[in-house]
Amino acid sequence: MKKIINTPENYVRDTIEGIIAAYGDRLKLLNGDFRMVMARQMPKPGKVGIVTGGGSGHLPLFLGYVGKGMADGCAVGNVFASPSSGKMADLIRACDFGGGVLCLYGNYGGDNMNFQMACDEVEIDGIQTEIVTAADDVASALSENAQKRRGVAGLIYAYKIAGAAADEMMNLQEVADITRKALNNIRSMGIALSPCIVPEVGVTTFTIGEDEVEIGMGIHGEKGIEVHKMMTADELAAVMLEKIVSDNPLENGDEVSVLVNGLGATPLEEQMIFYRAVHKLLDNRGVSVVLPHIGEYATSMEMAGLSLTVFKLDDQLKRLLKAPASTPFYNFS
Amino acid sequence: MKKIINTPENYVRDTIEGIIAAYGDRLKLLNGDFRMVMARQMPKPGKVGIVTGGGSGHLPLFLGYVGKGMADGCAVGNVFASPSSGKMADLIRACDFGGGVLCLYGNYGGDNMNFQMACDEVEIDGIQTEIVTAADDVASALSENAQKRRGVAGLIYAYKIAGAAADEMMNLQEVADITRKALNNIRSMGIALSPCIVPEVGVTTFTIGEDEVEIGMGIHGEKGIEVHKMMTADELAAVMLEKIVSDNPLENGDEVSVLVNGLGATPLEEQMIFYRAVHKLLDNRGVSVVLPHIGEYATSMEMAGLSLTVFKLDDQLKRLLKAPASTPFYNFS
Repeated sequence: MKKIINTPENYVRDTIEGIIAAYGDRLKLLNGDFRMVMARQMPKPGKVGIVTGGGSGHLPLFLGYVGKGMADGCAVGNVFASPSSGKMADLIRACDFGGGVLCLYGNYGGDNMNFQMACDEVEIDGIQTEIVTAADDVASALSENAQKRRGVAGLIYAYKIAGAAADEMMNLQEVADITRKALNNIRSMGIALSPCIVPEVGVTTFTIGEDEVEIGMGIHGEKGIEVHKMMTADELAAVMLEKIVSDNPLENGDEVSVLVNGLGATPLEEQMIFYRAVHKLLDNRGVSVVLPHIGEYATSMEMAGLSLTVFKLDDQLKRLLKAPASTPFYNFS
Repeated sequence: MKKIINTPENYVRDTIEGIIAAYGDRLKLLNGDFRMVMARQMPKPGKVGIVTGGGSGHLPLFLGYVGKGMADGCAVGNVFASPSSGKMADLIRACDFGGGVLCLYGNYGGDNMNFQMACDEVEIDGIQTEIVTAADDVASALSENAQKRRGVAGLIYAYKIAGAAADEMMNLQEVADITRKALNNIRSMGIALSPCIVPEVGVTTFTIGEDEVEIGMGIHGEKGIEVHKMMTADELAAVMLEKIVSDNPLENGDEVSVLVNGLGATPLEEQMIFYRAVHKLLDNRGVSVVLPHIGEYATSMEMAGLSLTVFKLDDQLKRLLKAPASTPFYNFS
């Protein structure tokens, strides 16, 4: 294991310290706790608060989306592990600006259990909450079990929509509803070329041949659908897009946003080559792309590979997607 | 070699096609040539044009900095190879908005020769040019031979300063002078943990032990100063900052901007852990940091490692650094 760190035990703490040292003008710790990060600027009274959280090792996910037009606070877990329900509850309290709080995160067992406990806990304080989870990974369960699917990079679009809706002063129910509508139109699929190493574990999360690609793998190294001999970018794009479209059909004239997400070690050049292929395939179907996102949005530390997310738009979703947002890690104006 | 590409021969072309497919509303090809990229929006008449260029394999460098408040055009070479002087000359002509053109790029033999030829060529057309090169890598030559140093991530700051100065309608001489002043205050140093593979070559650019780090390595795998047993983030930051500060001293009360640049495969978490160490060391010296940049700004495809750039500011440079800029790959407002 060769990483630019101090000790595996301090990996998360040192990361958050670095982030606060760099962006302390825009982010702050809640109660001085390095596992609870909030936007420094207070939003308008009555705005719905948006709280997220999840394991470390996925930067910019999750806390990179704390800022104007996205999330208000984030609970930070150990690498690939859920934060505690207590920290989630503290953040929900701190992010209730009078309009209740939307808890928005990826669909994983630990996070579900802890956010549910946190919401139960703050109910006593009279804080209204709604839970919305991203379950966008089509490779992780069949469509009849869609509620079991993992949340991956599609969550970024969900932050964007929820944040814009909250900024428009929609109420909690409306923000939750529109975020669910967005997620209903979002599908993702990933591929992995190499594993990563969890610092405190010290060994690779999985093994894969020097000439192989694993199709459908999750961002914690969860098993995919198939291990295949390495394919071209065009072939991979076709396989992945087909899987997505067969789950959520696209028609001539549809508009989508596309997110090509590097998992960590995959160069931006390869992400662009892959995007080119996706763009052509969509163009051939008469589908146009609005605001493509290409880069590292939800990583697995040094894993090589990428994911494709397709977000089918209507006029309302497109308007919210195009609303301004600004965090130290995400900017759109 | 396991890359998400189609063929090694089409690596650069497919990359640029992807970029134009994604960002064609903001970038365009000159003469339909995939090796010449320009900003779509025409600047104010009389603004100094800024043209850059260099080899592929370093995204977002170079063409990722074409846009508002930075460069106007970019010539694109093969992987790690200079673009031709003919394409540079075409771009200089297209980016002369009446105020002459600054050619701003990294200090490498091929780029120097070709940009010089291009400037000679356009002189016949009556176009005024100035050449300014980034030579910020302190590991690549001693200070008495500073003009031999390689240009690395410090070039990003130079684009920012030159672009802001040009937007303020300074004349060519003024833009060139202030960019030189900025570069005189910029120093960088890199470390590498693993090599990359040039697609058309197919083998790694260098070898390094599983427990080793190469200090001072260049972004094309140029030999560094020393191969060392792997060190902690804090130790690496101390060694690199010391080398930079001994070349360009910092005093109590100074203000700097710091750029921590991931070379490709190094996770954002590790970049943050490294930034934390640099920030502490500067703080101990009484030096404060303005607008830190942390992320992938000048890469070597899938190389693991990072570079540190320190930019010593005065009031004028700080003002220009904080001017708005917007490209598909860089945003500051």
